[in-house]
Amino acid sequence: MELKEYVRDVPDWPKKGIVFKDLTPLFKDPEAFRFALDSLHDRYREAPVDKVVGIEARGFIFAPTLAYMLGAGFVPVRKPKKLPWQTEQVTYELEYGTDTLEMHRDAIEPGENVLLIDDLLATGGTASAVVKLIERQGGNVTGIGFLVELGFLNGRSKLNGHDVYALIQY
Amino acid sequence: MELKEYVRDVPDWPKKGIVFKDLTPLFKDPEAFRFALDSLHDRYREAPVDKVVGIEARGFIFAPTLAYMLGAGFVPVRKPKKLPWQTEQVTYELEYGTDTLEMHRDAIEPGENVLLIDDLLATGGTASAVVKLIERQGGNVTGIGFLVELGFLNGRSKLNGHDVYALIQY
Repeated sequence: MELKEYVRDVPDWPKKGIVFKDLTPLFKDPEAFRFALDSLHDRYREAPVDKVVGIEARGFIFAPTLAYMLGAGFVPVRKPKKLPWQTEQVTYELEYGTDTLEMHRDAIEPGENVLLIDDLLATGGTASAVVKLIERQGGNVTGIGFLVELGFLNGRSKLNGHDVYALIQY
Repeated sequence: MELKEYVRDVPDWPKKGIVFKDLTPLFKDPEAFRFALDSLHDRYREAPVDKVVGIEARGFIFAPTLAYMLGAGFVPVRKPKKLPWQTEQVTYELEYGTDTLEMHRDAIEPGENVLLIDDLLATGGTASAVVKLIERQGGNVTGIGFLVELGFLNGRSKLNGHDVYALIQY
């Protein structure tokens, strides 16, 4: 199945000059949605995975289903003040300014094997920040999986030493 | 399995006097997470479902997995300016002020059977607004399912005439 047929290019979004890869046509098509999830599952079914981590908000669309399929737990990473209990924070650089993400302090036990799943690998800044959050809690990042990779932004260079995989390449 | 054992009460969050029902302990436990999803799936497996709709952000944690299990597509409802393409909007009343939600214009075809899944039924304002969005696109709401219902807030009264179900009752 050619998943790229279900990705919609939206020009000048979220700002002028950027062509956004809209995955909602893939999500709403039962066959494409199932094929994408089954393909990710095939990639990780032999891996030891205790927890799957997903990042707010688009990352929540795929990561929990992978957790279900792998028999793992799901851990949400959210923007500040969205998680109700005690959190660990990480702050990272953007093109202009910084961004902060949080995870609950009891989300991961030391030594657990953790799979990080997100929708898009662009510059790799968000994923590498979340890897820090996972490792600070003693988690072992066994894989980092994306639906889409924008290869020309070279985000993999920020994730050196990790097993990085993307279902759809641009 | 007693799912309430996996729900954490967080007092005075998001504001003083409110006891928040934190579901992250349920999400991170593989058995509880699987049991909750399998129970929702059992409830809807005989229903005709073309699309499952989930609401940003916590609603994304369960709804897409249900879509996968039921062989349906997934449709995200998001806050304004988060969806990249043409949207339909709905604005609804809160205790103080209003809130707005959006859905892509091509998300649902006329006559499709739609299951709405969200984490929490409180006053019912959000769910009844999303029902309007679905029906405006010609969708037929075949069920509205929640993980948790705060029965004392009587949110069901706003969803009259619909099949409403919640896995955990308070």
